[in-house]
Amino acid sequence: MTGTLHGVGVGPGAPDLLTLRAARLIEGASVIAYPVAPGLDSFARRIVAELVPAGTEEIAFPVPMTVDRGPAQAAYDQGADLIAARLDAGRDVVCLCEGDPFFYGSFMYLHARLSERYHVEVVPGVTSLTACAARSGRPLVARNERLVVLPGPLPDDQLEARMAEAETVAILKVGRHLTRIRDTLARIGLLDRAIYVERATLAEERVLPLAEVGDSAPYFSMILVTKGADPWL
Amino acid sequence: MTGTLHGVGVGPGAPDLLTLRAARLIEGASVIAYPVAPGLDSFARRIVAELVPAGTEEIAFPVPMTVDRGPAQAAYDQGADLIAARLDAGRDVVCLCEGDPFFYGSFMYLHARLSERYHVEVVPGVTSLTACAARSGRPLVARNERLVVLPGPLPDDQLEARMAEAETVAILKVGRHLTRIRDTLARIGLLDRAIYVERATLAEERVLPLAEVGDSAPYFSMILVTKGADPWL
Repeated sequence: MTGTLHGVGVGPGAPDLLTLRAARLIEGASVIAYPVAPGLDSFARRIVAELVPAGTEEIAFPVPMTVDRGPAQAAYDQGADLIAARLDAGRDVVCLCEGDPFFYGSFMYLHARLSERYHVEVVPGVTSLTACAARSGRPLVARNERLVVLPGPLPDDQLEARMAEAETVAILKVGRHLTRIRDTLARIGLLDRAIYVERATLAEERVLPLAEVGDSAPYFSMILVTKGADPWL
Repeated sequence: MTGTLHGVGVGPGAPDLLTLRAARLIEGASVIAYPVAPGLDSFARRIVAELVPAGTEEIAFPVPMTVDRGPAQAAYDQGADLIAARLDAGRDVVCLCEGDPFFYGSFMYLHARLSERYHVEVVPGVTSLTACAARSGRPLVARNERLVVLPGPLPDDQLEARMAEAETVAILKVGRHLTRIRDTLARIGLLDRAIYVERATLAEERVLPLAEVGDSAPYFSMILVTKGADPWL
């Protein structure tokens, strides 16, 4: 009898934005697993630090942050093998994932490798998307409004074309693309509708109009553009 | 000293997909508020039924479900007045909202009416979007993929045009638009990529290929179209 793999979203950062189900699974875990970038600690692990019981086995498998996909693919292969060994031994494994496992979440790479061979349960989490909206006081979408979620690395023409097509646009993974995205928004007349949010729900959170941000941003930053088209809001 | 208004997301349905923060606020609430459609009970209230302390004051204000916006606007005006009276008396109020307050959530109408006069805290919740993805075993977006969220009532040409522009499309509020949306997806060759999810995370949940669904769907249903464009998945 093999164990169950739980892919658990741990939310955007604040430890109490975990779900009750996630907390229960982590508190009862005999094995937890998570990727770590070389030289950094795991943000997901930090979020749940208070909940991990003493004696829990931890599988922190290194995943290099490279543009080339090969090294990270090999790293997820190795992580999946480590997890599979515990599942084969009949142990359940709880994989930690920032935000939600299936919304730009690292867990989907393990899911792709393990879900056909093992029983997998995905526990959805609070995403950075709604966390940033909550912290900025800007509703995302109501009624028949459309939402588009775009990664910041997309080229200018893509960003510009896609931004025209929804009442609300969220741009994630802003990081080093900050000034380029801001220039694009200014060019199409949406800069004054854009809010910048950095490290939402953490003590070091920043929320301000995009026009007032400096010229650098961390990877965990987001731009929300709400056009305010709905007269009910 | 006026009270604080908390707009609290209570998640997609399962009582343990509430956040720890939401649970703590509800367990400690002296006043909770939520809209109710005439003749129905409140889904949000049902999700948290086990947590509401005896003696909590409840403001269940009726909101008619009409196409014309006027009656609902008047109902939210009245609900906001009832809540404001408690805030003016120095009491905190916890407003319950299915899913996330700012993602098609009813709380945004109260937020629009009260956030300039009172201190408002929004507690993000797990959305139906990531809950449906989790339950269907279909990752939403990875890396530089784009996500489009569309309401089912959008006309065919809108649905068709917007669906071409992202790796993943989520269509919410499917309900009586089911067969029309399915026909549109078949016409553009995406029907075999479409999963249907109804009442995600509840006991009566249904998850199946869209092609195998009958001809009716409840309001709380969703279609996920994942094009599988990313070779890493």
